[in-house]
Amino acid sequence: MQSQVTQLIEHLIHDEHSPNSISQMMSEFSPDDIALALESIPLDQRKQAWENIKQANRLDILVEMRGESRQLLLKELDDSEIENLFADVDAAGLLEITDSLPDRLVDLALKQMDNKQREYYQQGIVYDDDIVGRWIDHELLIASQSIRVAEAMRLLKKATPTYTDMIYLVNRTGRWVGCVKFDKLFKAHEQDPISNLIDEECAVIQADMTLTKAAEQLEKSTLSALPVVDNNLILLGRFHAGLALETLRLENEAQQMSTAGLNEESDLFAPVKRSAATRGIWLGINLLTAFLASAFIGLFEATLQQVVALAVLMPVVASMGGIAGSQTLTLIVRGLALGQITRSNLKSLLSKELKVGWLNGMVWAIIIGLVTYWWFNNSLLGAVIGLAIIINILMAALSGVLIPVLLDILHIDPALSGSVILTTVTDIAGFVAFLGLGTLLLI
Amino acid sequence: MQSQVTQLIEHLIHDEHSPNSISQMMSEFSPDDIALALESIPLDQRKQAWENIKQANRLDILVEMRGESRQLLLKELDDSEIENLFADVDAAGLLEITDSLPDRLVDLALKQMDNKQREYYQQGIVYDDDIVGRWIDHELLIASQSIRVAEAMRLLKKATPTYTDMIYLVNRTGRWVGCVKFDKLFKAHEQDPISNLIDEECAVIQADMTLTKAAEQLEKSTLSALPVVDNNLILLGRFHAGLALETLRLENEAQQMSTAGLNEESDLFAPVKRSAATRGIWLGINLLTAFLASAFIGLFEATLQQVVALAVLMPVVASMGGIAGSQTLTLIVRGLALGQITRSNLKSLLSKELKVGWLNGMVWAIIIGLVTYWWFNNSLLGAVIGLAIIINILMAALSGVLIPVLLDILHIDPALSGSVILTTVTDIAGFVAFLGLGTLLLI
Repeated sequence: MQSQVTQLIEHLIHDEHSPNSISQMMSEFSPDDIALALESIPLDQRKQAWENIKQANRLDILVEMRGESRQLLLKELDDSEIENLFADVDAAGLLEITDSLPDRLVDLALKQMDNKQREYYQQGIVYDDDIVGRWIDHELLIASQSIRVAEAMRLLKKATPTYTDMIYLVNRTGRWVGCVKFDKLFKAHEQDPISNLIDEECAVIQADMTLTKAAEQLEKSTLSALPVVDNNLILLGRFHAGLALETLRLENEAQQMSTAGLNEESDLFAPVKRSAATRGIWLGINLLTAFLASAFIGLFEATLQQVVALAVLMPVVASMGGIAGSQTLTLIVRGLALGQITRSNLKSLLSKELKVGWLNGMVWAIIIGLVTYWWFNNSLLGAVIGLAIIINILMAALSGVLIPVLLDILHIDPALSGSVILTTVTDIAGFVAFLGLGTLLLI
Repeated sequence: MQSQVTQLIEHLIHDEHSPNSISQMMSEFSPDDIALALESIPLDQRKQAWENIKQANRLDILVEMRGESRQLLLKELDDSEIENLFADVDAAGLLEITDSLPDRLVDLALKQMDNKQREYYQQGIVYDDDIVGRWIDHELLIASQSIRVAEAMRLLKKATPTYTDMIYLVNRTGRWVGCVKFDKLFKAHEQDPISNLIDEECAVIQADMTLTKAAEQLEKSTLSALPVVDNNLILLGRFHAGLALETLRLENEAQQMSTAGLNEESDLFAPVKRSAATRGIWLGINLLTAFLASAFIGLFEATLQQVVALAVLMPVVASMGGIAGSQTLTLIVRGLALGQITRSNLKSLLSKELKVGWLNGMVWAIIIGLVTYWWFNNSLLGAVIGLAIIINILMAALSGVLIPVLLDILHIDPALSGSVILTTVTDIAGFVAFLGLGTLLLI
């Protein structure tokens, strides 16, 4: 499948002058494949390819595009084209692209919408885009709790939306009463009151829950969709497996991108200035921590001048601490995400990590000490680096446990900032331990 | 929900001497919550908690545990207990835990299994654990292509498994013919031949597909489950949304852990020696790259001795390159995973990344150059570090594009090893550029 998208990309780049063959080829792909292909070609060619897409398909493709790519494309279009594009956008589509649009165009699209869709949009827009309430699916089988099985079966004959394995029951005020799973429904007699079949265990999702939490709930439920309710238990719609899968897939991507200070909406071919500016922020943060580490090295200028081998070996001490620390950090960050870390097991955890650090510190101190002795023919230097390695790996274990726990208490996501803080600590601790011991023992 | 698991953990740690209250509390949790709670307490307390779990629930909990935690627990149990435990394990359960068991116990469990389950096990075990074939769901609605709608509806009255929104049709040899979605089935007349309702677009999954690919296919299909077939199109079973969600969730976790050289089966409280050994490998790889970088620094010992400020500022140059490079690398690794990178766009991509590098290199070179000038009151040193920053950031852009692409061509996962190779390159390039220019211009 991926190779097909690759073909489409090649085609778009090479056949830019044969619009017919392109629009022919594109008709064989789904909107999300075309969106991905558009994101994979340089900006000037992208505009050309866009013009070869049939008007009727453009909106669907735009909705599927990554935020930055969509913004860059919308910038190239003139207002009348955008207005045409949004003539029949629905609530879900507009909620997806609303952040890339000026208010004026959002208002215009809302005016053209029918009442029901406008209401869905207004219900959704109050929630952030990582919250279930924004992405509620309004296609669902819904029935009064007072009907009989025969009536429910007639409901099924009209239409069964995708991801449906139950009927949702409400009372007269639209309040959630319970669900009836297909398995029970099909086995029941036509004249049974449907309320006899209600499943007690059927979970509901609150509209203000995060998508991630909701996906977790859905997985636990072994159902294809769960009902979404507001604070008064009024049934608003569904959260289904398709959305849950998309959530986890995008989260995966976001997590991967965030390790480099990027976000998952980034365009592969964003304009140079724009890319440089976004990435510059992360470089700047890193620069501050690097200068901080340098300042600590600077304290030992006199020592470095006398024992230049210390300068040669400095990075070894810092990086061993950084690696050991990030191992502990990663384990703790996962534990925090899973709810595994509690007040009671924190002490055992810290003691275990310190013991692992002690053992690994000893082993690697000996190895590094011997290599250093062999390299510089200086046994005292070997002892100094060995001691510094032990100190820094122990420091790394301590920081690896405490930094994410403290960030979590302060409600800062440890997955994002933990690693920057940790390596700053292990860099500084490594330099100070190594150069400090060097000053004491070698001079 | 997470807070509930947290409560269970606290309870297990503090109430170790009141088995009744523990087994009472545990009865309120699902096997995967209990598994998680067990993984969250130190090993000695874990054994005690295990003994308070009812015999009937133990197998389900064991199946839900992470690989390393399960292995550690199994080590503590004697053979007769393990034999009891596996008296009524099914194929899916045994496939999950088989890697933690000695062959002898697997054979024993297989002997106790009924023929059908043993066959499923033997079908599954030939596939690796990231392949669909290993985890096929065998509960499905399956019918001959020659029946009528009325018969299909009778099938539904018997039982409708979870994640079911269609009936699978096969011919007399068990070969896949097509699917009939509930939506069409419910609307049809009782006497219609079911073959009239076959959905042409219904995707199938090959048993040898990876779980990740299959989850992607399922998301695209907007169905709750897809049929799994072998190479001869014989229908083997299903791949459903529950498994797809689990796949993505675990993949997320695996990816997070792999950045620190850990794997997602790691136990939070693994024994110290064992943890130290696993983590030591990653530390060792890192040590080799650190020594390599040191060796390059060592080439400039004479220079460092004369201009000690170079030693103080070295880490700044290396780390700016590392950060800039990992930004490019991350973007390219994502592009490769999505199938976005082709022969034709690679050149544009490289040129764009070099331009971003050039721009950011210039900006940060000026800033860092000025700070250095102000700090050391040495304008030539400022020029040297500025030039080195530009060279290293350009080198980072080049490596960030080329390293993952080369790894991909060599069929090595760039997400795993790309970052280690990249930072080695940027460290070395940074040190050599900075110290080399220092030697030329400052001495």
